[in-house]
Amino acid sequence: MSSLTTISENKAFGGVQGVYSHASAETKTDMTFAVFVPGREDGVKLPVLWYLSGLTCTHANVMDKGEYRRLASELGLIIVCPDTSPRGEGVPDDEAYDMGQGAGFYVNATEEPWAANFRMRSYIEQELPALIAQQFPADMERQGIFGHSMGGHGALTIGLRNPDRFKSVSAFAPIVSSLNCPWGHKALGGYLGTDQSTWRDYDACALIEDGARVANILVDQGTADQFLEEQLKPDLLVAACERAAIPLTLNMREGYDHSYFTISTFMDDHLRWHAERL
Amino acid sequence: MSSLTTISENKAFGGVQGVYSHASAETKTDMTFAVFVPGREDGVKLPVLWYLSGLTCTHANVMDKGEYRRLASELGLIIVCPDTSPRGEGVPDDEAYDMGQGAGFYVNATEEPWAANFRMRSYIEQELPALIAQQFPADMERQGIFGHSMGGHGALTIGLRNPDRFKSVSAFAPIVSSLNCPWGHKALGGYLGTDQSTWRDYDACALIEDGARVANILVDQGTADQFLEEQLKPDLLVAACERAAIPLTLNMREGYDHSYFTISTFMDDHLRWHAERL
Repeated sequence: MSSLTTISENKAFGGVQGVYSHASAETKTDMTFAVFVPGREDGVKLPVLWYLSGLTCTHANVMDKGEYRRLASELGLIIVCPDTSPRGEGVPDDEAYDMGQGAGFYVNATEEPWAANFRMRSYIEQELPALIAQQFPADMERQGIFGHSMGGHGALTIGLRNPDRFKSVSAFAPIVSSLNCPWGHKALGGYLGTDQSTWRDYDACALIEDGARVANILVDQGTADQFLEEQLKPDLLVAACERAAIPLTLNMREGYDHSYFTISTFMDDHLRWHAERL
Repeated sequence: MSSLTTISENKAFGGVQGVYSHASAETKTDMTFAVFVPGREDGVKLPVLWYLSGLTCTHANVMDKGEYRRLASELGLIIVCPDTSPRGEGVPDDEAYDMGQGAGFYVNATEEPWAANFRMRSYIEQELPALIAQQFPADMERQGIFGHSMGGHGALTIGLRNPDRFKSVSAFAPIVSSLNCPWGHKALGGYLGTDQSTWRDYDACALIEDGARVANILVDQGTADQFLEEQLKPDLLVAACERAAIPLTLNMREGYDHSYFTISTFMDDHLRWHAERL
């Protein structure tokens, strides 16, 4: 188990918003992440809600703009916000914003030059949870997961693959089918190669089609989101959930876009959704 | 009256968070500012709450991290967030973070090289309010003002000099006496020169000593603020308000620092304080 370096800790809403780094065995880099721990009595463990971020983001975007601390503090939820990829010199990258550093897509890459470092699936599913369990007052029997855009894809796919671990799943403006959008084709083609059968583990709709199940899903999607038609395609998730009889609450939000202004607006609804299930 | 350029508008919490720029006659530069307008019925005008930011900040820091939109929307408050100084090539600057661009101190400079552009007092007191009144659904009979650190100094001094305009005044971790802290000595010495009698218009405690009055003041101050002892000195404001019989509510917040994590934590309290008075 790697040790933890504290980058910053600030008191906020009666709790502590921390930023930490550790040497990751999965990515072979230092990884930074943010954790908010509400104020609590000594010895009390709290449920953990994972927030996965979108393309170009680090842990900091949602920490700065997500407005989750007030209600997370009230509801007693630990919020964990990982980075979206390994980073740094010596880590492969791509000039585009949607591949390489900042664009890990929550996969274990099999193709070169990505395979050595781009192991965000194992990092989120195994390595970081073990560290959180060891270092924070976290009740790992009560975990939920949500995220935005590429991170919504991450939340849906990780949630669907691990229904025993995550009691609640939601997303803001998620990529619902990597097999059916340009972002997915570019990233999964690069990280996993051209055999699309290997992509199905990283496609929420394909996972459902292949039998994965969760109790229910909440999605908020802005109608003024510039990526709605080409990349996000919530209708594909509606169809997949209908066929599989998974209750999906899809809220189409009139006039809202792809930004954190939208996420912060509906953050409270998502925190309550998770708290009710954790 | 200069015209307005829209830089961005995003729907948030049922309202619109906008960022705009205009050619300022006072600063002789383009000035950028943020305005949040809650959702409202056509024709309804709303009270205006001015937020002045601290050293190094632009309009964006509080827009991104202040967490004011949820409750401002509920209370029906327009929030105006100006920049902290003129900026750009050709505008004088200083290498230090606490002088020049990003450090306007809400004064009208009289010394060279600052005098031509650094007119933030007139900009906030006259030019920008006229633009807000013209371009937004603002009820200018109902205005309040608050701010952080250097912006807390701005809110207190502008509020004290204009008690008829501002019905409510509050601050987070304000500089309460420019005459009694290193930041004040450096900035006012630079902008106004060595005759300290000219500084008194820009010192909240001196203004009160010289007879300025407001109905009451709210201040939140973290006990773990790294600038508390050397720069902020809330005890000086306590003494000045006591002598002048101005009711001051000073909340010393245990363990909170100088950051936006603190501001966002107590934002709701300040918004309610202003809404009750507007």
